[in-house]
Amino acid sequence: MVKTANAVVGQSGGPTAAINASLAGVMRAAADSNGKIDRLYGMKNGIDGLLSEELIDLSDLCHEREKLSLLRHTPASALGSCRRRLPPPETDDEPYKKILSVLKKYNIRYFFYIGGNDSMDTVSKLGSYAEKNGFDLRVVGIPKTIDNDLPLTDHTPGFGSAAKYIATMTQEILRDCAVYTVPAVTIIEIMGRDTGWLTAAAALGRNICGAEPDLVYLPERDFEMNCFISDVRTALKKHPNVVVAVSEGIHFADGTSVGAALQSGASDVFGHKYLSGCGKALELAVKAEIGCKVRSVELNLCQRCASHIASETDLREAEAVGAHAVAAALDGKSRIMITEIRNGNSPYTVSFGTVCVDDVANKTKYVPSDFINADGNNVTNACLEYLTPLIQGEVAPLYREGLPVHFVF
Amino acid sequence: MVKTANAVVGQSGGPTAAINASLAGVMRAAADSNGKIDRLYGMKNGIDGLLSEELIDLSDLCHEREKLSLLRHTPASALGSCRRRLPPPETDDEPYKKILSVLKKYNIRYFFYIGGNDSMDTVSKLGSYAEKNGFDLRVVGIPKTIDNDLPLTDHTPGFGSAAKYIATMTQEILRDCAVYTVPAVTIIEIMGRDTGWLTAAAALGRNICGAEPDLVYLPERDFEMNCFISDVRTALKKHPNVVVAVSEGIHFADGTSVGAALQSGASDVFGHKYLSGCGKALELAVKAEIGCKVRSVELNLCQRCASHIASETDLREAEAVGAHAVAAALDGKSRIMITEIRNGNSPYTVSFGTVCVDDVANKTKYVPSDFINADGNNVTNACLEYLTPLIQGEVAPLYREGLPVHFVF
Repeated sequence: MVKTANAVVGQSGGPTAAINASLAGVMRAAADSNGKIDRLYGMKNGIDGLLSEELIDLSDLCHEREKLSLLRHTPASALGSCRRRLPPPETDDEPYKKILSVLKKYNIRYFFYIGGNDSMDTVSKLGSYAEKNGFDLRVVGIPKTIDNDLPLTDHTPGFGSAAKYIATMTQEILRDCAVYTVPAVTIIEIMGRDTGWLTAAAALGRNICGAEPDLVYLPERDFEMNCFISDVRTALKKHPNVVVAVSEGIHFADGTSVGAALQSGASDVFGHKYLSGCGKALELAVKAEIGCKVRSVELNLCQRCASHIASETDLREAEAVGAHAVAAALDGKSRIMITEIRNGNSPYTVSFGTVCVDDVANKTKYVPSDFINADGNNVTNACLEYLTPLIQGEVAPLYREGLPVHFVF
Repeated sequence: MVKTANAVVGQSGGPTAAINASLAGVMRAAADSNGKIDRLYGMKNGIDGLLSEELIDLSDLCHEREKLSLLRHTPASALGSCRRRLPPPETDDEPYKKILSVLKKYNIRYFFYIGGNDSMDTVSKLGSYAEKNGFDLRVVGIPKTIDNDLPLTDHTPGFGSAAKYIATMTQEILRDCAVYTVPAVTIIEIMGRDTGWLTAAAALGRNICGAEPDLVYLPERDFEMNCFISDVRTALKKHPNVVVAVSEGIHFADGTSVGAALQSGASDVFGHKYLSGCGKALELAVKAEIGCKVRSVELNLCQRCASHIASETDLREAEAVGAHAVAAALDGKSRIMITEIRNGNSPYTVSFGTVCVDDVANKTKYVPSDFINADGNNVTNACLEYLTPLIQGEVAPLYREGLPVHFVF
């Protein structure tokens, strides 16, 4: 490895409230590398920007602490993102050749990629290709996903902030729903196609303020309509305002998604099938089976971009993960992903490690069985113990005339 | 009027993030009334609680500053709410007789009602009935609605906080939408059946940070589908990520709501008509007519209960309006509503006045013509000048283990 080389960093996949904190972490660490990293480039729109040679020189910005602080509190991917998956190099090595030629041209020997599952696949393939072709490149994956579904890391940067928005908003919705005495069911639909981590966060109030949804359904359990209707009836006997949290990905035992199944046959004036979420589907089911007032609330994009209520713990860790990626690369490591290791809950501390990225790519971490109750309609206290430290701490973003100030390139 | 008497306060209609601040204002002012108000009672669930004699004695709580501060930052109606409208006393005076008997029993001579349009109708009818029947009662309405649609007041407590959530979330969604390069349309559906005040707030970033939705449609203008599709096409030529803000109440020239019109004929597996919002309807329209990626986001309940991002200006004014209601009642006024009068924008200050509640009840304040552009697809700078002062200031709610602490009776 040459003693001084340049580095490149990219962001990929769906944005989060913490992905820019990881970028800021990479930038600070590059600035503090004692010249081992000379110039730091940013890929515009992830790997797409590398392929099209759209690189932003971040070197000067790395030293501007005030702007890095703004970046830290800015939601979504400041460098832009992409959804591109690289083909297997055996079948198509064109993109890899192009990437290596750009890296050579810019004397780039460090490659940092902040992303989720698909992005780790890119890290794996590119790292492997570079090795096989004798190109000295340190390829490091920096985990990011609100879904918390990456294996081999205690949790994933971005998750804590989304969880904090969901837990806070659920508390506020619970207050809102409690004002009337007429029986009513409110269904909150939360992101998570395959895993229920985010939906579990809706229950976080239980041991903190004693207010929580009556029912919580995760995609880790098959959904049964009869049980659901019976659960809601039981809850309505206890109090008039029933609140239910559901993952968007809940499905019946045969794998059919709840949303799609209940909407089959429905189409609009254009002749298109309706494809609203499972919240709307369950709203219709409660109306048909129970007949009480019912509504659904889809938290939608808000849960992944609500930086104003980000978790300070999450942002701090996201930044540290970025810095550790730089340290690991300078240490000669490659084809790795940085992980978070929980040392304990009292006090809660984490340390950072590395795993071979091949062990992460295209794998999914599900909510474990002991985090879900026997009836499959709520989460356990063990789950809340796991979640609680991740939402600690409130952020103090900069506001101008009543609105949060964001960093924009 | 007897020198010392008791008072009752109630909350009615849809909850907001500021309605408890007005309650706190009434409570502080009652505590500071030098004994003119002896005991202060709270109606459980508005006028319903008065009719059923479910009253909460708030007198001791009025002196607990810490709890009042918690109450100020708690969303929704802490006393509970109702949607009851009193019948005209000419046709049915039973509820009025019952109310007066309860008021006499508790020696209540001051009646404070925090609510919107329907609640001012209650204030008007009850005040009038008490007068005609020689019952010495001061009936004062305290305005509250996120919709900002009450006439004769510059704005309405509750609106500023909802506007701040909408403006903040829109900024964050704009960041989120900007990360990809594939043409995409995102439609944000915002509350407001008859008026577009809340939707206008989505544009607040324009002169503050230069980021705003491309298009904004209010119910004050008839919606034309051809114009909308043409507007979206034009916006897509400028940049790939188009964001549109629409009021839930937008309608075609014949009065048909956009949501209902586009969904006619659609029904689910239970045979029920679909009744999702106009955002979903426009999503389907863009998909059919333009064919690009499109999604809709309904801010839903979140916009009226997101106390964590309330406007400090709004909470301060909401509290002051509550206190002014007590002062006006002690001053002998009745059948009035407290109003906010804007003295100017630089610096922004308000004073408080009173109007006869009959002039407010069942009337609607629409977004004026000069606040909407000629094409009817955005708001003007004059509109933003009106809105900007109302979202100023961030709140500092109390957090416990990462979640906001709420006041619960």
